[in-house]
Amino acid sequence: MTQLEKAANNEITKEMKYVAEQEEIDANLLRKRVAEGLAVIPANINHKHLKPVGIGYGLKTKVNANIGTSPIKSNLETELEKLSAAISAGADTVMDLSLGGNVDEIRKRLMEKSAVPVGTVPIYQAVIEAGGPENLTLDKYLEVFEKHARDGVDFATVHAGVTKEAISLLEKRVMPTVSRGGTFLVNWMRKHNKQSFLYEGFDEILKIAKKYDVTISLGDGLRPGCIEDATDEAQLHELKVLGELAARCREKQVQVMIEGPGHIPLNEIEKNVRLEKEICKNAPFYVLGPLPTDIAAGYDHVTCAIGGALAGMHGADFLCYVTPKEHISLPDVSDVRDGVIVMRIAAHIADIAKGRQSSKQRDKLMSEARSRLDWEAMADYSLDPVNFRKLLKEECKSNPEISEGCSMCGKYCTEKK
Amino acid sequence: MTQLEKAANNEITKEMKYVAEQEEIDANLLRKRVAEGLAVIPANINHKHLKPVGIGYGLKTKVNANIGTSPIKSNLETELEKLSAAISAGADTVMDLSLGGNVDEIRKRLMEKSAVPVGTVPIYQAVIEAGGPENLTLDKYLEVFEKHARDGVDFATVHAGVTKEAISLLEKRVMPTVSRGGTFLVNWMRKHNKQSFLYEGFDEILKIAKKYDVTISLGDGLRPGCIEDATDEAQLHELKVLGELAARCREKQVQVMIEGPGHIPLNEIEKNVRLEKEICKNAPFYVLGPLPTDIAAGYDHVTCAIGGALAGMHGADFLCYVTPKEHISLPDVSDVRDGVIVMRIAAHIADIAKGRQSSKQRDKLMSEARSRLDWEAMADYSLDPVNFRKLLKEECKSNPEISEGCSMCGKYCTEKK
Repeated sequence: MTQLEKAANNEITKEMKYVAEQEEIDANLLRKRVAEGLAVIPANINHKHLKPVGIGYGLKTKVNANIGTSPIKSNLETELEKLSAAISAGADTVMDLSLGGNVDEIRKRLMEKSAVPVGTVPIYQAVIEAGGPENLTLDKYLEVFEKHARDGVDFATVHAGVTKEAISLLEKRVMPTVSRGGTFLVNWMRKHNKQSFLYEGFDEILKIAKKYDVTISLGDGLRPGCIEDATDEAQLHELKVLGELAARCREKQVQVMIEGPGHIPLNEIEKNVRLEKEICKNAPFYVLGPLPTDIAAGYDHVTCAIGGALAGMHGADFLCYVTPKEHISLPDVSDVRDGVIVMRIAAHIADIAKGRQSSKQRDKLMSEARSRLDWEAMADYSLDPVNFRKLLKEECKSNPEISEGCSMCGKYCTEKK
Repeated sequence: MTQLEKAANNEITKEMKYVAEQEEIDANLLRKRVAEGLAVIPANINHKHLKPVGIGYGLKTKVNANIGTSPIKSNLETELEKLSAAISAGADTVMDLSLGGNVDEIRKRLMEKSAVPVGTVPIYQAVIEAGGPENLTLDKYLEVFEKHARDGVDFATVHAGVTKEAISLLEKRVMPTVSRGGTFLVNWMRKHNKQSFLYEGFDEILKIAKKYDVTISLGDGLRPGCIEDATDEAQLHELKVLGELAARCREKQVQVMIEGPGHIPLNEIEKNVRLEKEICKNAPFYVLGPLPTDIAAGYDHVTCAIGGALAGMHGADFLCYVTPKEHISLPDVSDVRDGVIVMRIAAHIADIAKGRQSSKQRDKLMSEARSRLDWEAMADYSLDPVNFRKLLKEECKSNPEISEGCSMCGKYCTEKK
């Protein structure tokens, strides 16, 4: 039975208890939200040693880190290091998006090492095993999906909202598709002139998801890839299909969340969140950024933190990071760390804006420490104590005049009493 | 005569012409906005070789970089390097906040080298010359203010809104004052039990400002220094005083802009911008960040870019950067560069959200280059071409498989046709 099924049967599972404790909320309230589909707890029955995480209404805004190999860069040890870096920087979940090397082994090793929920995009491996997107079949997809489910994958992106009807809407775009999954499916539908096998076979995917309690993350395969294409017809068409599919997930008592854009100007982010909440009946919203400009490659971790903070404030529940290398290369270990930290800042800013008391309390404690010039306490309350201490140490070493603390104002410090 | 005076007399100055060309707007429209106080062109008659910059309604969102020495860290050469770094990273203006070393020499050298408008906070030097804030007098302040004006300073922060009436309102705060100028004045008023000499002597300050056309930047000496104190009575009390002082500036045909917070939760930023615009009759709004969390020291350039982008979208005109070292130390040259770049991302995101066509056009050109995998054009359109090319070069060197471009997806690249 899935967490959703149990919640609907009035059962408070040990996962719900754990999440409720972490979030400092009532476990029965959380159960109700899971039952209503407002929150999900991605917790595959086969994921050993999982520390469950809740995502959705009334819960802390969560951060996901994408890791994984590419056909060009593929090294298991590097991926394990990225996993450690992501978790120690505070990622709430990780997704293994591997496209190169021995993807089965990489996934298994990451699953073994990860106490946080792990997500995958099964169509990637299905394409690799089929020898190209044009050879995909539903059977191949289901086979890979079940393999991931058996291995303990907690949530999986399924681009079942990319349907034949949307293809003509892509013609007006500057960048028709930028989602890999979306591109595979559009190419497949064009080649076979058929409806998407993911859409057609959705009930069969749900059967496997239900068996292992894999949370379905409905992918936005037609997400806009640039500001010019934002919130366009193709995107909204897919969102409506995702709304239908979300209802079908709940009907089958499969947990579901919705993936969102993408490249969106800052003034359209609130609208995008509201549309998702309305059309998908308040299913948790999992956004990739959003990125409110296209021109900041090299700094897209910051770009997406700007979009993510605003999306979170308006109700997005789950923020997928982007690393500084986005649009240029696969991230290395330090990019993963930087990406997570910066997106955690965005999530924390969103939680303050959402009025979350414990988030505000931490800021108050920090500021009280600041006003009494207590540098140890400031380090403790800071979002990245390791970096804070490192910067402070460099500062004190290079300035023999100050035994501790800051060189900004010297005797003119506003906090010196 | 000031730009405002000339604008009111229907004169289109060469500075207005230059700014209108840069902004691709009609020069007479700009003149009208300057006349109405909706826009300012900080351009001291003594600043040689100035490339004027317009700040305000309908103009590109601008970015300021604070540089300057402290009593602990003071080196003229470093400050000149910071100036170059700020300008080459795209800062629209710089402020010299020097508190240590030979501040006269530092300011003069920075003025000589700077083609962008330069701002200062004259009260700093007045405190140094008076031998402490308690010894300040209006005469000493005016003497220093005129020295800066004579040297060509284009805009100057004046904390004349910090008045006696606000002092009791600070008691409720976690951090009563975090502005250096604000702290000096509060301490002075407490010690002397008198109204602020800046408030009392405001007309005399305006006389000097008018003579040299120094734009007054009304400082928010009582800006909140933490989320807990945001948008409180003390802050709003000062804002009302700033509204009165802004009216007095315009009456005397002195250009004026308003400085704003500070530490503000994301959900209060829109309100803060609207209040400023309402109370100060649409005077250009110059915000420090804002920082929507207190706990991200080490990454406060990102924190303030998140707040700055949103403030900009809602109508803030001028964003003061914060560097990664804020709250820990004086920035070094690379911090200055990082701070400017990240705040420029925020300003560009705000300009897209404000509907600025030429900003959107650059994103479109970038995305078109991306869709044809034209890496040279992508570098050209990117916000930081130097960094883009560096990352791309590293990528290609470490991956002999790819002669150019990205390692993210390899043969699964969505843009490969």
